[in-house]
Amino acid sequence: MDRIGIQEKIRSLSTKKIQNMYLNDFLLTWDKTMDELGAVFQVAEILRDMRNNNISPKVFDTGLAVSIFRDNSTRTRFSFASACNLLGLTIQDLDEGKSQIAHGETVRETANMISFMADVIGIRDDMYLGAGHTYMKEVSASVYQGYLEGVLPQRPTLINLQCDIDHPTQTMSDALHLINHFGGIENLKGKKIAMTWAYSPSYGKPLSVPQGVIGLMTRLGMDVRFAYPEGYNVMSEVENLAERNCHQSGGCFTKFNSMEEAFKDADIVYPKSWAPYHVMEERTKLLKVQDHDGLKKLEKKCLESNKKFKNWECTEKLMATTNNGEALYMHCLPADITGVSCEQGEVAASVFDRYRVPQYIQASYKPYVIAAMIFLSKFNQPAERLMSILEGNTSRWG
Amino acid sequence: MDRIGIQEKIRSLSTKKIQNMYLNDFLLTWDKTMDELGAVFQVAEILRDMRNNNISPKVFDTGLAVSIFRDNSTRTRFSFASACNLLGLTIQDLDEGKSQIAHGETVRETANMISFMADVIGIRDDMYLGAGHTYMKEVSASVYQGYLEGVLPQRPTLINLQCDIDHPTQTMSDALHLINHFGGIENLKGKKIAMTWAYSPSYGKPLSVPQGVIGLMTRLGMDVRFAYPEGYNVMSEVENLAERNCHQSGGCFTKFNSMEEAFKDADIVYPKSWAPYHVMEERTKLLKVQDHDGLKKLEKKCLESNKKFKNWECTEKLMATTNNGEALYMHCLPADITGVSCEQGEVAASVFDRYRVPQYIQASYKPYVIAAMIFLSKFNQPAERLMSILEGNTSRWG
Amino acid sequence: MDRIGIQEKIRSLSTKKIQNMYLNDFLLTWDKTMDELGAVFQVAEILRDMRNNNISPKVFDTGLAVSIFRDNSTRTRFSFASACNLLGLTIQDLDEGKSQIAHGETVRETANMISFMADVIGIRDDMYLGAGHTYMKEVSASVYQGYLEGVLPQRPTLINLQCDIDHPTQTMSDALHLINHFGGIENLKGKKIAMTWAYSPSYGKPLSVPQGVIGLMTRLGMDVRFAYPEGYNVMSEVENLAERNCHQSGGCFTKFNSMEEAFKDADIVYPKSWAPYHVMEERTKLLKVQDHDGLKKLEKKCLESNKKFKNWECTEKLMATTNNGEALYMHCLPADITGVSCEQGEVAASVFDRYRVPQYIQASYKPYVIAAMIFLSKFNQPAERLMSILEGNTSRWG
Repeated sequence: MDRIGIQEKIRSLSTKKIQNMYLNDFLLTWDKTMDELGAVFQVAEILRDMRNNNISPKVFDTGLAVSIFRDNSTRTRFSFASACNLLGLTIQDLDEGKSQIAHGETVRETANMISFMADVIGIRDDMYLGAGHTYMKEVSASVYQGYLEGVLPQRPTLINLQCDIDHPTQTMSDALHLINHFGGIENLKGKKIAMTWAYSPSYGKPLSVPQGVIGLMTRLGMDVRFAYPEGYNVMSEVENLAERNCHQSGGCFTKFNSMEEAFKDADIVYPKSWAPYHVMEERTKLLKVQDHDGLKKLEKKCLESNKKFKNWECTEKLMATTNNGEALYMHCLPADITGVSCEQGEVAASVFDRYRVPQYIQASYKPYVIAAMIFLSKFNQPAERLMSILEGNTSRWG
Repeated sequence: MDRIGIQEKIRSLSTKKIQNMYLNDFLLTWDKTMDELGAVFQVAEILRDMRNNNISPKVFDTGLAVSIFRDNSTRTRFSFASACNLLGLTIQDLDEGKSQIAHGETVRETANMISFMADVIGIRDDMYLGAGHTYMKEVSASVYQGYLEGVLPQRPTLINLQCDIDHPTQTMSDALHLINHFGGIENLKGKKIAMTWAYSPSYGKPLSVPQGVIGLMTRLGMDVRFAYPEGYNVMSEVENLAERNCHQSGGCFTKFNSMEEAFKDADIVYPKSWAPYHVMEERTKLLKVQDHDGLKKLEKKCLESNKKFKNWECTEKLMATTNNGEALYMHCLPADITGVSCEQGEVAASVFDRYRVPQYIQASYKPYVIAAMIFLSKFNQPAERLMSILEGNTSRWG
Repeated sequence: MDRIGIQEKIRSLSTKKIQNMYLNDFLLTWDKTMDELGAVFQVAEILRDMRNNNISPKVFDTGLAVSIFRDNSTRTRFSFASACNLLGLTIQDLDEGKSQIAHGETVRETANMISFMADVIGIRDDMYLGAGHTYMKEVSASVYQGYLEGVLPQRPTLINLQCDIDHPTQTMSDALHLINHFGGIENLKGKKIAMTWAYSPSYGKPLSVPQGVIGLMTRLGMDVRFAYPEGYNVMSEVENLAERNCHQSGGCFTKFNSMEEAFKDADIVYPKSWAPYHVMEERTKLLKVQDHDGLKKLEKKCLESNKKFKNWECTEKLMATTNNGEALYMHCLPADITGVSCEQGEVAASVFDRYRVPQYIQASYKPYVIAAMIFLSKFNQPAERLMSILEGNTSRWG
């Protein structure tokens, strides 16, 4: 990609209506218009092209990005770190284990105390149903109020790095991967994507990825085929939303009870384990009352139940039934690979191996998607700013 | 605040005698002259104005700030991170749990080993009476010796982020809050400030805030009214110091045995819990010999004793007795709020709520106070340097 | 050191054949040619001179350095942080305890996932024989493959911050200390260096320092005198390598069974404890099968065995037998000092004290050695780049 290519991308960005992104958060993809989602894809590509051409899009001379990880994370943590670094922001982690937040501080107070110089706040909070998204909205409202009250000199932008409902930095990266794989966002219309449950020997995987995928891909006009064993449903609000999306986008949303049906003639498959909604709901209740025996029993019951569906595995045989036997296999990683990371898992080793490079590329978009979300919330005229970066032509290194 | 306003502040700074701050630490406010304290207030304001006007006071192209937190911290950690980032310094945390310091390394050796490229060292060490300040002086002497011996190419500046004796970044922020609230440092003369103990269900809160407050506010010519239940005294050295300060400043230092007396007609109230000096002293002894049973007994005894003083609460009724019933309520946060963070605590919820925004603003000065302490120790001609930053007019972001 | 001195050093660098360092890792000193080692010494000196003259060698506008510490570390962690900061890189730590790597992710996947924007990866992995170096090669091969496959836009440089075989950032710092102490690398030829075991009450110290020292100093033409009690041998591959090195360098490698013989007439002494090779081998086996009882027994047995050699201590009496009684005492720190950090240890307090400053200076080279390794792998024409930094004359701070 040369400079003229980057210029063209910047010009096409300036046609989008994205005023509402300015000084705004990114919490759920379905809060955003199609133009806004398109702008994230476009800016992510532009920033990637710039970095690959050794042009530095550092727009902060100094600045702080707060990270709050309420669950373990490697790839999202590094993606956030990479995105912030590219733009010139320094990360300061709020480690609640080490902080006084554990001693009963209110969310509002802490949100303000960490934000006197914060330009961005990234939060991962995906463990408890009903909690993560609520917490993010509370933090966002707190710092906005702090800004209005004159406590904060700026309104920090909140980026959802995974909540109980959506995982927008993941699914936007997934979508950007599809856009590049199929040669344009318009080519996704009508493409069959099988988002399916798959067996895993581990317990309690969050619902945000399948929810985020069906919530986003239906907006892109795709033919979303959603399959899971009976009882493994996700939040009904998101299933309903996926259906509604199709009316607008011309996409489809169909549910199946077997991988076989969902995979048939699919262009893309995304087989991935998750815990049933009712289990996650019960788990949240037990966690709130610290019922450790109850939690152990629930885990045991859920793992027993999982075992009934060991045949939900993405095998070569199933892959052969997809469109030309060549569907694009996707995973948000890490996958449970049969015979590699576990005895029996989500995917056969040969399938995973064949798609290893595409999966790594899928993951590689995340830092740029995050950087684009931040960039678009910080600049009222993002196209103009990107053009001036291109003209300024500061080297990232050398 | 426009550029002309900033220029005026810089000019007034250049009249102060502050040569001794250059290459020096900031350990205790009472080590500093009034001109030096005034310079910290002034530079903090200037740096805040600059950032709010999107002027970047980044004076380090690269550089390291070492942080050593021997106690949990959220707001001080973020304040230090913010201050360092604003000036261009990157924080490297010395986590003693993870480091070889736990294996018997001497302070001198570690202090030098972490300082080959360190411009600043920030330390919080407030748990043990007789330890924190001593440790800081040892670190400071070690790196100064290392500098003289040719081991270190620079002398790192040590900033006390809270010790057993003083909490200068807190109390200087408190004072700057008062200066702005009352419209100038000269307006603090004669103002009545009630620094009082308050009941809390928690145990072992450090003495450094009340000590730091009486040690600083008496120098500003305030009428300091210090109240605590019998037995809850602080270090007598600091009480004596507070008295001596008044001779110079024209302030007052009076002790009371009740909140009622201290609050009467007060312009400012600062009710806050702390552990009695003799308990902290005993605790230090028990900790040194790792007497866990003894520590548990001491905690129990102390909490029992606290309960006798549950009526030491900052209520609406007490607030009504202050000057026009409108004293400024202050707290270093987090506060124990009755019915919110605990059953019965330091302050009534309605009082706390009414003063929430002023308290947040009080806290917001800390990053700038820390940045000012660093700045003043790094520049021989701070006013000239600030003027050149103003003229350089580099954007912090955009 | 003035600018003309720096220019001269840069010019002498340009005579060295170092093309192979470009885009390459630094894993073992014996993988490198003498010109390459010489270039590291030279660039380390140049970077130090620049920093000391307030010239900023920041060559990255933004950029990420990943650190992976699989063992506790203070000085190496700070050295890596300092080096990266000096060049403009921000560190992101991969804390495996907190990350999903603990849940069975493959090395290849994680290596790629953390490297989308990584310019450098620094790894310390010195606990298990046969593991550390192997892991580093695996990470290096993974990211190189990722680069070839188009997953990564750059090939991150891997720096060995200590493995089971070598500790190149330590031994290169040690060598640079000797070069400066004796006034030039050519003056090291024929100098007697006693690398000896010494008694310590602690257990399981890695072999990488003695191995690294004998592997490097024999290449510099030194007369390496290697002494340890029977059974305390290191990897035979490295002992053999040390012997072979001497054929090329004109150096000597002689083994002894007593400190007395090794110290006799020595110009330099490096007495330091380590665990016997066979113990480390057994330990690795037991760790793999998580045999905690076996590990405890092994530790006890090893400590008992150590006690037989309590007389392996660097005393004043032994120091008196060195060349003019004035051998340079070295240690990688922290040392076990008799009567200070333990009852009986590696070195007498008076010896340690007399050489405290030289030891601190020895340690001070490490940040610059690491920065030089990174610099040389990132620039095809390092001399030209250094010259342009000198001419650019950007202040590091001020």
